[in-house]
Amino acid sequence: MSILTRPILEINLNNLEHNYLDLKKLASGAEAAAVIKDDAYGLGAEIIAKRLYKQAGCRIFFVAHGIEGERIRPHVPNAKIYVLQGIGEDSLSSFQKAELIPVIASKEQLSFWKEHKINGIKPAIQIETGLNRLGFREQDLQEMAIEDYQLFSLVLSHLACADEKDHFMNEYQLKNFIRLRTRFFPKLPASLSASDGTFLGSEYHFDIIRLGAAIYGINTAPYRENQMLPVVRVFAPILQIAELNRGDFVGYSATYRAAEQRKIAIISIGYGDGIPRSLSNTGKVFFYNGSKISEARIIGRISMDNIICDITEVENPHVGDMGFIINEFYTLDDIGRDAGTIGYEILSRIGKNSRFIRNYTE
Amino acid sequence: MSILTRPILEINLNNLEHNYLDLKKLASGAEAAAVIKDDAYGLGAEIIAKRLYKQAGCRIFFVAHGIEGERIRPHVPNAKIYVLQGIGEDSLSSFQKAELIPVIASKEQLSFWKEHKINGIKPAIQIETGLNRLGFREQDLQEMAIEDYQLFSLVLSHLACADEKDHFMNEYQLKNFIRLRTRFFPKLPASLSASDGTFLGSEYHFDIIRLGAAIYGINTAPYRENQMLPVVRVFAPILQIAELNRGDFVGYSATYRAAEQRKIAIISIGYGDGIPRSLSNTGKVFFYNGSKISEARIIGRISMDNIICDITEVENPHVGDMGFIINEFYTLDDIGRDAGTIGYEILSRIGKNSRFIRNYTE
Repeated sequence: MSILTRPILEINLNNLEHNYLDLKKLASGAEAAAVIKDDAYGLGAEIIAKRLYKQAGCRIFFVAHGIEGERIRPHVPNAKIYVLQGIGEDSLSSFQKAELIPVIASKEQLSFWKEHKINGIKPAIQIETGLNRLGFREQDLQEMAIEDYQLFSLVLSHLACADEKDHFMNEYQLKNFIRLRTRFFPKLPASLSASDGTFLGSEYHFDIIRLGAAIYGINTAPYRENQMLPVVRVFAPILQIAELNRGDFVGYSATYRAAEQRKIAIISIGYGDGIPRSLSNTGKVFFYNGSKISEARIIGRISMDNIICDITEVENPHVGDMGFIINEFYTLDDIGRDAGTIGYEILSRIGKNSRFIRNYTE
Repeated sequence: MSILTRPILEINLNNLEHNYLDLKKLASGAEAAAVIKDDAYGLGAEIIAKRLYKQAGCRIFFVAHGIEGERIRPHVPNAKIYVLQGIGEDSLSSFQKAELIPVIASKEQLSFWKEHKINGIKPAIQIETGLNRLGFREQDLQEMAIEDYQLFSLVLSHLACADEKDHFMNEYQLKNFIRLRTRFFPKLPASLSASDGTFLGSEYHFDIIRLGAAIYGINTAPYRENQMLPVVRVFAPILQIAELNRGDFVGYSATYRAAEQRKIAIISIGYGDGIPRSLSNTGKVFFYNGSKISEARIIGRISMDNIICDITEVENPHVGDMGFIINEFYTLDDIGRDAGTIGYEILSRIGKNSRFIRNYTE
């Protein structure tokens, strides 16, 4: 019997690389950029950038913030690094040090860029096609000085509903993008699609596809079975096994009460490790016994450091056994759905917690 | 006009210290320990431990994991550091290096401790009184070898419903705690209450109160107005201001549609910074204009890096203005409630994101 106390986050870099290369094949000749913003969705931007650069030949990266670009630069010396949130006083030095390429999305940012230009860098321009998030609106483009059209090296936009194959917004945004590009930036390379858009077909690919969530194993096209390999597993040891008697309560605010004798396990992971508290009384923990997998229901409130689950039906459990929160068949998408959100948010939360033992499988 | 791109997390160490000292006064002579597990709920365990040690005289700290104790040890050289998740093979070296005190909660952990004892350290024992989480059950205590009762230096337990003053569980657990302590550990110092239990009255205080959430400004006794000073503010700059026309959609999956002309702001913060995605179409962003505060509704889905809000009614907004997600009157508790959870979970998420500019006010 092992006595263990820490949760474990396992990141499968082989599968991640496989996902990237697999999507790249779909790209009908477009370049496949990797989106590693938000610390590669929490999985470690440096390690993932390095892997994709060295072993998968990735030469374009997208981050959200200047500091994120600065962090990965040493690992991707000859790559282009685009910064989606743009450039400002609080990020200028990162752009200068790391030769980052800002994505300019508003006239204010454009003015800032013209004052603080960095030699040898031509920014990208983001244009709005229907998401109504960051990007130049058509009127802004009309009002732009003629010479400013020449400042850019890439025109990009972002789809709102690409995870639904037949959503009318896809074609609407595609037409808008083609129309605005043709009118204002006819000679510029273009990029419209993230992972989800990549599955919509070659007319959505243009010159660069931006692969994020899907390379981390998330099903970004949930209208069909996930074709990505799983990249993360999350598990934590049983700290204690105990019995509940009829009438016993469990956890904060006594939200679970045993109707009969039950056996419970206290697992060493909680919302302090990024497991959503909304899984209280609804989520699941999985246990392996050889090839047999048992499902144990989470009972009571999830607390900061612990989850309690009902292991009455689990065969032969021991203190030190691992309870799986995310694995190959209960994926980021599954836990996202059960927690009332999406796998993206789960992934972005988990990897940032320093209590995990992080195991990268190479 | 400032062009800024990064979100800001402001941590008021004066208020934090004030909260600690304020609660200490309530403690009727018990020692006031600080709970700084989970990286001090995301706010930076080293900085907070150091402040409470040096300036507030705190000499007892509780963490969840051995590594958390090891991290703070250099900043609190003569303090006792208790580790709530106990000790195991994966944390033993932290205990040895940093002279941490394990909280032993099960017979398996006790066996492990007896094999790996550290000279000069007497562990605490956690006993179960009704939460049904970690702790020796009564039967375990009965079965313990006589000499083992002598191994410990502190007996502790944890309340399930102390945030509800009149909940029957409080008295039930108090009686259980007194009964078990009297029977098995009559001479040991004792600890039952965290922040919430501290407000229940002196009979809940025993020898050590364990102050966590409340020192970070959370209202742990929500049946009355919060008496703690706020410790965190979270805000982020407007990246862009734009107009919506009647019929325009906003954000992923087009979940918001404008019924009329609206003005929107895109704020540089998202769920990648720990802002719960469940605030989509329901949360709020606040803007200051001198002493006037305006409330702007979050519209559409929150995305990883951005929140979009309706600023039609906000006076004189500019790119670069700060939108407040958490401030003095829309607190951790408020955002927790609106997101369908509690302030504890919000706090634990936010501080772990490296894109924040972290400002500690001393």
